[in-house]
Amino acid sequence: MATYILTDLASDLWVEHFAIDQQGLGLPPGVRCSITKQRLRGGRRDGVDLIRVDNGNLAFTVVPTRGMGIWKAQCGGDRLGWDSPVQDGPVHPAFVNLAAQGGLGWLDGFDELLARCGLAWNGAPFTEGAALYGLHGRIANLPASYVAIHVSQDPPHEIVVEGRVEESHLFGPGIQLITRITTYPGQRGLVVRDEFVNLKDQPIDFQILYHWNFGPPFLEPGARFLAPVKTVTPRDRRAAEGIDRYGEFDGPSPGTTEQVYFFELLPGLVDPARTLAMLCNRAGDRAVVLEFRLDQLPCFTLWKNTGGSRDGYVTGLEPGTNYPNPRSFEKARGRVPSLEVNGRRVVETRLTVVTGEAAVRAVEGEIGRTQSQALAVVHQYPTEPFTAAG
Amino acid sequence: MATYILTDLASDLWVEHFAIDQQGLGLPPGVRCSITKQRLRGGRRDGVDLIRVDNGNLAFTVVPTRGMGIWKAQCGGDRLGWDSPVQDGPVHPAFVNLAAQGGLGWLDGFDELLARCGLAWNGAPFTEGAALYGLHGRIANLPASYVAIHVSQDPPHEIVVEGRVEESHLFGPGIQLITRITTYPGQRGLVVRDEFVNLKDQPIDFQILYHWNFGPPFLEPGARFLAPVKTVTPRDRRAAEGIDRYGEFDGPSPGTTEQVYFFELLPGLVDPARTLAMLCNRAGDRAVVLEFRLDQLPCFTLWKNTGGSRDGYVTGLEPGTNYPNPRSFEKARGRVPSLEVNGRRVVETRLTVVTGEAAVRAVEGEIGRTQSQALAVVHQYPTEPFTAAG
Amino acid sequence: MATYILTDLASDLWVEHFAIDQQGLGLPPGVRCSITKQRLRGGRRDGVDLIRVDNGNLAFTVVPTRGMGIWKAQCGGDRLGWDSPVQDGPVHPAFVNLAAQGGLGWLDGFDELLARCGLAWNGAPFTEGAALYGLHGRIANLPASYVAIHVSQDPPHEIVVEGRVEESHLFGPGIQLITRITTYPGQRGLVVRDEFVNLKDQPIDFQILYHWNFGPPFLEPGARFLAPVKTVTPRDRRAAEGIDRYGEFDGPSPGTTEQVYFFELLPGLVDPARTLAMLCNRAGDRAVVLEFRLDQLPCFTLWKNTGGSRDGYVTGLEPGTNYPNPRSFEKARGRVPSLEVNGRRVVETRLTVVTGEAAVRAVEGEIGRTQSQALAVVHQYPTEPFTAAG
Repeated sequence: MATYILTDLASDLWVEHFAIDQQGLGLPPGVRCSITKQRLRGGRRDGVDLIRVDNGNLAFTVVPTRGMGIWKAQCGGDRLGWDSPVQDGPVHPAFVNLAAQGGLGWLDGFDELLARCGLAWNGAPFTEGAALYGLHGRIANLPASYVAIHVSQDPPHEIVVEGRVEESHLFGPGIQLITRITTYPGQRGLVVRDEFVNLKDQPIDFQILYHWNFGPPFLEPGARFLAPVKTVTPRDRRAAEGIDRYGEFDGPSPGTTEQVYFFELLPGLVDPARTLAMLCNRAGDRAVVLEFRLDQLPCFTLWKNTGGSRDGYVTGLEPGTNYPNPRSFEKARGRVPSLEVNGRRVVETRLTVVTGEAAVRAVEGEIGRTQSQALAVVHQYPTEPFTAAG
Repeated sequence: MATYILTDLASDLWVEHFAIDQQGLGLPPGVRCSITKQRLRGGRRDGVDLIRVDNGNLAFTVVPTRGMGIWKAQCGGDRLGWDSPVQDGPVHPAFVNLAAQGGLGWLDGFDELLARCGLAWNGAPFTEGAALYGLHGRIANLPASYVAIHVSQDPPHEIVVEGRVEESHLFGPGIQLITRITTYPGQRGLVVRDEFVNLKDQPIDFQILYHWNFGPPFLEPGARFLAPVKTVTPRDRRAAEGIDRYGEFDGPSPGTTEQVYFFELLPGLVDPARTLAMLCNRAGDRAVVLEFRLDQLPCFTLWKNTGGSRDGYVTGLEPGTNYPNPRSFEKARGRVPSLEVNGRRVVETRLTVVTGEAAVRAVEGEIGRTQSQALAVVHQYPTEPFTAAG
Repeated sequence: MATYILTDLASDLWVEHFAIDQQGLGLPPGVRCSITKQRLRGGRRDGVDLIRVDNGNLAFTVVPTRGMGIWKAQCGGDRLGWDSPVQDGPVHPAFVNLAAQGGLGWLDGFDELLARCGLAWNGAPFTEGAALYGLHGRIANLPASYVAIHVSQDPPHEIVVEGRVEESHLFGPGIQLITRITTYPGQRGLVVRDEFVNLKDQPIDFQILYHWNFGPPFLEPGARFLAPVKTVTPRDRRAAEGIDRYGEFDGPSPGTTEQVYFFELLPGLVDPARTLAMLCNRAGDRAVVLEFRLDQLPCFTLWKNTGGSRDGYVTGLEPGTNYPNPRSFEKARGRVPSLEVNGRRVVETRLTVVTGEAAVRAVEGEIGRTQSQALAVVHQYPTEPFTAAG
């Protein structure tokens, strides 16, 4: 395992530029991959560190300055991610005031393929006493204190981007995210493995939601969302309007407002803790699949935001420890896990890009077989009082 | 036209240092001009990009990091601008919390000759639901995503500083400012030509106010404000106290509070869309003149802030789409224009430094002739309920 | 006196790296000292300037980017400072939103040995009208506009870190801090001499509190706080619980909440304006001593925060112009001094590290003799209504 440390505050180490490829890594001739790191300059991205991994089939960018989120990815000719109205990202946290706009300031930097929401809270803004808890928490706007690249010299030549981010201060929660984003040369996917560590001497409530966001070409008129559904519930009246077509997507429709659905998913047939969700295009020959574990991420949220192309035409596939409601709401329903003293918790999500009708049909088949365990319960209306954004 | 791109996020281009003069530009020997760009370091200006243009007679600095505002200028021996209590500007937006002090945080960075106020709103802070809309909006604290210098090889050798700034995020307005600040070698003035582009698939309300600010030597005891006035209205009781002398200035008076006047100006005799306003010194031999179009900027505000020299002794000449009241107040009075889908709107303001008694008298004559169209209506008291800052 | 200017915005001077030692300074061979300056990179410290002074016996770091606070120090093998849950400091102010968490955002950057609290206000958050005044004011999150190092070629070779920080904007207070942090080769201490200058043409209320913070090895179970006490008053019920043991410390106790005590101290026997306070370890062979003047800093606050080691096990010795209550509370009790126009005020605090039983006993003896002037008045309960944090 070759390790390249790019940031380590403990030893005051920070590398401005880094670039290596299979040759520099000493990998066999047939293997293609490259990893680069640069600091961006100018505009609102000024000072943002960006890591780019190209495994030959899949290229993706990780943003240490924004909580180790995944900014964009490219697989074959297909873009993973979306066209955010945030034009000039990735946005440095110095330009994001999380408390702005009544707690919606997070949106000023929101343009990622994967934005983590948490760690002390996520979901819609809420207030407790005089304190405002902004949309989706702090982790996406905290820079990593440690960043390293690991590449294995042994087949299949694992490539890992490791990062550590601390959300911690006096009189508050202290949680460390240790993420390992892993891929392999030639693979059409990656795994995000996160470990959440209690840094304090007290138990800490924590929440994590993975805001995976996709626009065209996966999202398009006639695109479909598929998952083995135990229950699905519209968040509010607006979502209820579309409950009968929750799994189908319209084209960009300026003036449309978002629809959010809360799911319980069914466990897999082989591994009962594992489940999956898929977004596939109209033709059914191109899809993204998320795989995760129900014991780690029991709540799944689908965010359909099919406004105009320039307004943010996007859908969010969001596995989480909870639904994106205010923390107290989720806590009252037992959906806010606690990290014990010295406690740590691992959460893993796999993203796969599926290409070709046969491959898409295979995933659809697996979802169908999983669904055969039970009929989906479709609630026509919200089962809990309305709260807010998703 | 020689073009030097200094920032272009789309191609990840950013130039840290840039310096060129007439020789480097290949201009004829008699022509004097220079353009430099640097990144400032230290204090609250750390990370601010600054462009300096010297056309031989007029030198001015443009701040891409602060929404392409004009920081300071110098013409002959005369300073254009003012002594802001913000001592160590230009201030990087990372040090400005627009929500601070009940929405007055904007003042932490306010030290420019020209600060744009807008684009989604400007004027006094207001709240809508849980959201606080701070004083004078966001544009002055957003960095440019594109910056270029253009110089024409052909006489009269136009010099242009071009910049693009986006005020845009999900679930909010999306407006692009494309500014071209133009001058010519030897000219004692410049033109700010702004284009405002709707980036979204929905109509967007927008507001722009040009906060041009002058201290000594143009502002001094006995200095005068002149414009062809259709109506003038004091904003509040404090302004009403001084309505009979609204066009005259006192010297620095510690403890004095600001007086704000709202104007409708008369159209020019030749071009009925064009109007002008002048600040001239006591001797009447030195003035600054703003020219703009009533169909672009129908509202004019005069801000008299003649406090102590160290408190901010300054006057603001502020043409705008509206008066600097909360947006809903202005909207109810039809003073908030809308950008249609694919819409764009151009606004142009010319600043001229006038030197010598004869030249000043000529402008005064033009203002007088324009005024001869109608008697100025002077409202002794506010005609609309009091709102806030200007 | 050799002077090295490291930052001077007035002349656009900023030095990224600086390093000099006794040789470079031309000091005699027996003298040991070094001064370095660097810009930190990565994480939340990205862009922070750090100055390190080593006088041979005492090494300490000053943070121009954080209001010239003292980050950490080392004397012999002993660390001065504490383990803040802010893991990766010193934190750049761009990552601190003072308005966050109902005005407790200051805690996001709080990890210093010495953090100044002020200058327009300090203490617990409060609101006036729509404006929120966050915990402990702004000065600790404002970067210096001027930084210089002075070293005397003449014995005893005074070493000075000078810095100037402005807290100033339009329509608000304008106060300049001019600090000189002084030490000598071989000395086991330093002096912080601050000058506060009114930058405006109006009188300005100002507040300063020196938040000196110590963890192990000075703080430990059985460690003691000693000072010549005129009166001591618990801030609230929680502090009242421990009033009988206010001078004794427990070990790290997860779940414990802070206890804050307000003191009037007795004047020294020799110099009646001078007083002192000491924190010494259980064995009584290791202590830190603060000396200051009652005419400059009449109020003393002891902050006991003996939570878990990872929660912030720390005590604050806090001489100030006031107690850390909201400004209006302090003002009503005559504890908010005013800076007149053209006024300036000097405040000096000496920190000494005392090693060895005899030396600690000598300080204890001095405190005892000073105490002999009067019996300490120990209020069992708060004498004023409860307000907030310390």
